[in-house]
Amino acid sequence: MGDYIRIVIDTIGGDNGAAFCVKGAVEGIKRNQDVKIFLTGHESELERLLSEYEYDKNRIEIVNATEEISLNESPVKAVREKKDSSLVVGLNLIKEEKADAFISAGSTGAILAGGQFVVGRAKGVKRTPLAHLLPTSAKPSLLLDCGANVDVKPEVLNQFAEMGSIYMECVCGVKNPRVALANVGTEEEKGNALVKAANELLKENKDINYTGYIESRAIPYGKADVIVADGFVGNVIIKLYEGLSKMILKELKGAFLSSFKSKVGAMLIKSSMKKTLKKFDASDKGGAPLLGLKGLVVKIHGNSKEGEVISAIDQCVSFVKNDVSRKIVEGFEDNNE
Amino acid sequence: MGDYIRIVIDTIGGDNGAAFCVKGAVEGIKRNQDVKIFLTGHESELERLLSEYEYDKNRIEIVNATEEISLNESPVKAVREKKDSSLVVGLNLIKEEKADAFISAGSTGAILAGGQFVVGRAKGVKRTPLAHLLPTSAKPSLLLDCGANVDVKPEVLNQFAEMGSIYMECVCGVKNPRVALANVGTEEEKGNALVKAANELLKENKDINYTGYIESRAIPYGKADVIVADGFVGNVIIKLYEGLSKMILKELKGAFLSSFKSKVGAMLIKSSMKKTLKKFDASDKGGAPLLGLKGLVVKIHGNSKEGEVISAIDQCVSFVKNDVSRKIVEGFEDNNE
Repeated sequence: MGDYIRIVIDTIGGDNGAAFCVKGAVEGIKRNQDVKIFLTGHESELERLLSEYEYDKNRIEIVNATEEISLNESPVKAVREKKDSSLVVGLNLIKEEKADAFISAGSTGAILAGGQFVVGRAKGVKRTPLAHLLPTSAKPSLLLDCGANVDVKPEVLNQFAEMGSIYMECVCGVKNPRVALANVGTEEEKGNALVKAANELLKENKDINYTGYIESRAIPYGKADVIVADGFVGNVIIKLYEGLSKMILKELKGAFLSSFKSKVGAMLIKSSMKKTLKKFDASDKGGAPLLGLKGLVVKIHGNSKEGEVISAIDQCVSFVKNDVSRKIVEGFEDNNE
Repeated sequence: MGDYIRIVIDTIGGDNGAAFCVKGAVEGIKRNQDVKIFLTGHESELERLLSEYEYDKNRIEIVNATEEISLNESPVKAVREKKDSSLVVGLNLIKEEKADAFISAGSTGAILAGGQFVVGRAKGVKRTPLAHLLPTSAKPSLLLDCGANVDVKPEVLNQFAEMGSIYMECVCGVKNPRVALANVGTEEEKGNALVKAANELLKENKDINYTGYIESRAIPYGKADVIVADGFVGNVIIKLYEGLSKMILKELKGAFLSSFKSKVGAMLIKSSMKKTLKKFDASDKGGAPLLGLKGLVVKIHGNSKEGEVISAIDQCVSFVKNDVSRKIVEGFEDNNE
């Protein structure tokens, strides 16, 4: 059993209930023969849901947990008090080294807090960034930090650059990933105090392929593989990306429905448009990893379906197989301690 | 002559040459009978261009200026050294109170530097923000600061909120504008140190209609009339807005051209789509004002045509007629000094 890649799925946190987690888990172990999955949540419900499938019973295990952490409660308080929540029970499996990776569609705040307080940072890691793959007109770019750390020091951004590089190289297969630092211009003299200081550290960092500043207007064109930002700026970017794409597509849909002529036109462009929009669909790119912990914690969308669970399982497999956690820690032991 | 609203147009800085400035100026004085325009730039060229039009010769005056400030030079150095540039000559007209407002399609950096060093801040104003109207699915929102001040204190954001409110109320006719502070979440405990401290000041500010935090994903839906951010975050927002809209539309265009069927479909949706895209066109919303100076300085796009010049003239007229500069200064004398 020790040879399995052991992945925990929190089945309570998401908007769509446990059914999609179970479906994703069953599909996930079919695709990945070396995976074992722990489902944390209501035992009786999970038993009932699992009974609908044929699967290798040695490779899916239920771990009972009855409490739920809602979006409305203080994440830190919830994680500290709700010891029997599916989130905390799941994260404890990582902490106790009974599992390697954890996937949840629950409250981002609770996942971040749980990652920090239950699992804990790996040795040498100053802060643990939340990373997201952004769709672009080229290949997806990894943006980090997307909101876990809003006030940081330049050294922290330097570590984020390294973690992001390792992730893109080992999990996404991008060779020598181009790292860029989000800024208000590309000229040397541009930027706030944090960015200017981080730029100096990044230029000297021999473990990464640093290409300099990136303006946000260039981000959608995939000009960098890893985009480094503090959690405030990264959060603004990821949420604006999401909100603006949705708004533009909604407005266009409204335009298509505004006349008979355009309705007919919309039918004709439907299939080619779908292909384009698929590019902007995050669900097949796996979840958002919280990097730098003693184990992998992956946040998937609250409204995820089994597709995103399966992608996240694949992502965890790559992460564990490529020993990303160890590579991150080694990097920091070499450089900073 | 003292009763005219006197507007300077810098005819050298833009990408499209002086012709569109001249055309805009001629149209602008036709639309606004109480406007007089100063064109700064190459005298002989401007004379030649003007000779093509019939117009009230008392209301357009050429002010010769021969130097050009390019995008590649240091803005501060250029503004200090190039005394005979169309930008500096124009800004000096404001400084000497020979004109009320200044419009330029030149380098943003040079306009910001010139605003600060040549025109100067109005009394009581701590920092002068660059404000942009963002297109949304509802009415446009004013975002400030879009990049003039990347490291600021909470009191500065509080002033930006007041300036933005006065601008939206007096120039854009929005009654009791809803002010929001850009943040990573809407809950009280969210945010970095700057935003949390600014939030306290904004809550206590009785001169504005403060509605709390706004997440970037809500910005495209027009949930606030005035969005306050430091110049770093504001710049990231405005440029991502621009880059992402362009990229999505480009990708869709590519999708439309991918098959014969979709090409036919695209023809049928063309007119209704155009109407929608018009909403996202900044050119009819005037330029970006640099607020808090002793006079109005407006930055228009580098690739502006006469349409944007005319909108900017209209904008300057509203600004001067409504005495916005005085209202801004009065606000700060009351509150802060």
